[in-house]
Amino acid sequence: MSALPRKVQIVEVGPRDGLQNEAKPLATEIKLELIRRLVAAGLKRIEATAFVSPKWVPQMADHEAVMHGLERPAGLVYSVLTPNLKGFEAALAAGAQEVAVFAAASEAFSQKNINCSIAESLRRFEDVLQAAQRQKIPVRAYVSCALGCPYQGEVSPQTVAVVANTLVQMGCYEISLGDTIGVGTVGSTRAMIEAVAAKVPVTKLAGHFHDTYGQALANVYAALQLGVSVFDSSVAGLGGCPYAAGASGNVATEDLLYLLQGLGIETGVDLQALTQAGDFICEALQQPTRSRVALALAANRSKS
Amino acid sequence: MSALPRKVQIVEVGPRDGLQNEAKPLATEIKLELIRRLVAAGLKRIEATAFVSPKWVPQMADHEAVMHGLERPAGLVYSVLTPNLKGFEAALAAGAQEVAVFAAASEAFSQKNINCSIAESLRRFEDVLQAAQRQKIPVRAYVSCALGCPYQGEVSPQTVAVVANTLVQMGCYEISLGDTIGVGTVGSTRAMIEAVAAKVPVTKLAGHFHDTYGQALANVYAALQLGVSVFDSSVAGLGGCPYAAGASGNVATEDLLYLLQGLGIETGVDLQALTQAGDFICEALQQPTRSRVALALAANRSKS
Repeated sequence: MSALPRKVQIVEVGPRDGLQNEAKPLATEIKLELIRRLVAAGLKRIEATAFVSPKWVPQMADHEAVMHGLERPAGLVYSVLTPNLKGFEAALAAGAQEVAVFAAASEAFSQKNINCSIAESLRRFEDVLQAAQRQKIPVRAYVSCALGCPYQGEVSPQTVAVVANTLVQMGCYEISLGDTIGVGTVGSTRAMIEAVAAKVPVTKLAGHFHDTYGQALANVYAALQLGVSVFDSSVAGLGGCPYAAGASGNVATEDLLYLLQGLGIETGVDLQALTQAGDFICEALQQPTRSRVALALAANRSKS
Repeated sequence: MSALPRKVQIVEVGPRDGLQNEAKPLATEIKLELIRRLVAAGLKRIEATAFVSPKWVPQMADHEAVMHGLERPAGLVYSVLTPNLKGFEAALAAGAQEVAVFAAASEAFSQKNINCSIAESLRRFEDVLQAAQRQKIPVRAYVSCALGCPYQGEVSPQTVAVVANTLVQMGCYEISLGDTIGVGTVGSTRAMIEAVAAKVPVTKLAGHFHDTYGQALANVYAALQLGVSVFDSSVAGLGGCPYAAGASGNVATEDLLYLLQGLGIETGVDLQALTQAGDFICEALQQPTRSRVALALAANRSKS
């Protein structure tokens, strides 16, 4: 076990992964204000939107307006999800500095979600990666179902390692390993990361944990102990879990930050400003926060 | 860092710690049925009630009826909380096989809660411990505020170690280290347990984590890595946090069990039967569960 990382990068995915399943359309200006507040809290990596078809993800239909409305202070990277070359080109035209592609580590999930095998899903990104290389655009990759699949159940760590390594070989600079349904525990997390790290340098790995079964922070800690130093999270735990209505989804950025602060790990993010960004979006969505830290801090404030 | 324990004892504190702050009086028969279901789920250590004054804790006023109504299969230990010799004698007369005493690791908390210094609070248990020794009754001790205090804020790991060691010297066989307000992170948890384990064998330590800031399971994992193999928890996360209304309290037994199962650690507890015990008490209290595992499993069931 290596020493814990001194610094961690938090990739805020709330504006995309967190909002994409919200049924009620949210005004572009609200999304932009959320992003401004996340930036003010010190986040340096934010997934801003997705260039996917509005037919599939209506909430992301305003992707161009979002990209054009972003303020762009130095040192900040906005990433956008792009499923294909058309999306990539539109994203680039709208000023994306980084894009993200995705594949599943589960054959059943790949077939059900994008109607093709894992191998075919990877081939479909070849043109995106070639175009990105020509344009010098960094490409991040998500590997979903890295710790379990809603259709096939178990997912082999070896399969995750092969998919992750293929994406690195294709040119992705970072692989975000996603526990899409939040079923992973520290036991399966360790086994999966060890298998992936045997093929891909751990510096290229990110952890993307869902808190559906309450295990996300324990899994983050296990990943930190294995040297992972990039984690995805969603302010206020936005998004829930599309595979289990009423359950939690992405780990809340506030809860992740609280863990990291307690370990003395630098992130550059301010907890108070972050909870204010969470309050803002929860009020806009008329939803309670899913962050336990935000809940506890609010309860403490209402007492005093 | 030692290897993880192969077996863990779960001390179910729901019927006492979980229920004691419920304002609505709960029928004794409901409490007994909850305990029967917890036993059926495989729990072997259950804190059944408290022999405290009904003036202070009205919900525990039926302690004698609870003790008399308990079924007593072999291999099962019911513990009860006893604040003084009078409570101890009444508990013994009612058939308690184990008692628990408590002290704070925070001077401010001790003064506010029991109106005396830490040292004085320990002296007040001397007669209980002497009587217990004569009667060969094992005594467990809770050390509260082990990772922080609602009044004074920080609590020094050295103070926790001194209080824990004093209680062991007085004859307590196990010290449950309580993060009463759930503010601890893996960083402070490690520091505290390392300080205590320098004075008290780790085999005498138990972890009692609250999930107020969502950190409980990460803290459990950190404690497991330091060799702690006894953990307190409350089915359905019963009880909430008396210091932060609306926030979580005791870590849910279901969530703890899910973590331990994922590590292949034996507990003898069945998750499905446990969630049914949680469903039962949540329905009786007309409250939603605070267990994320119970929520996720229920969401999965409602889908299929």
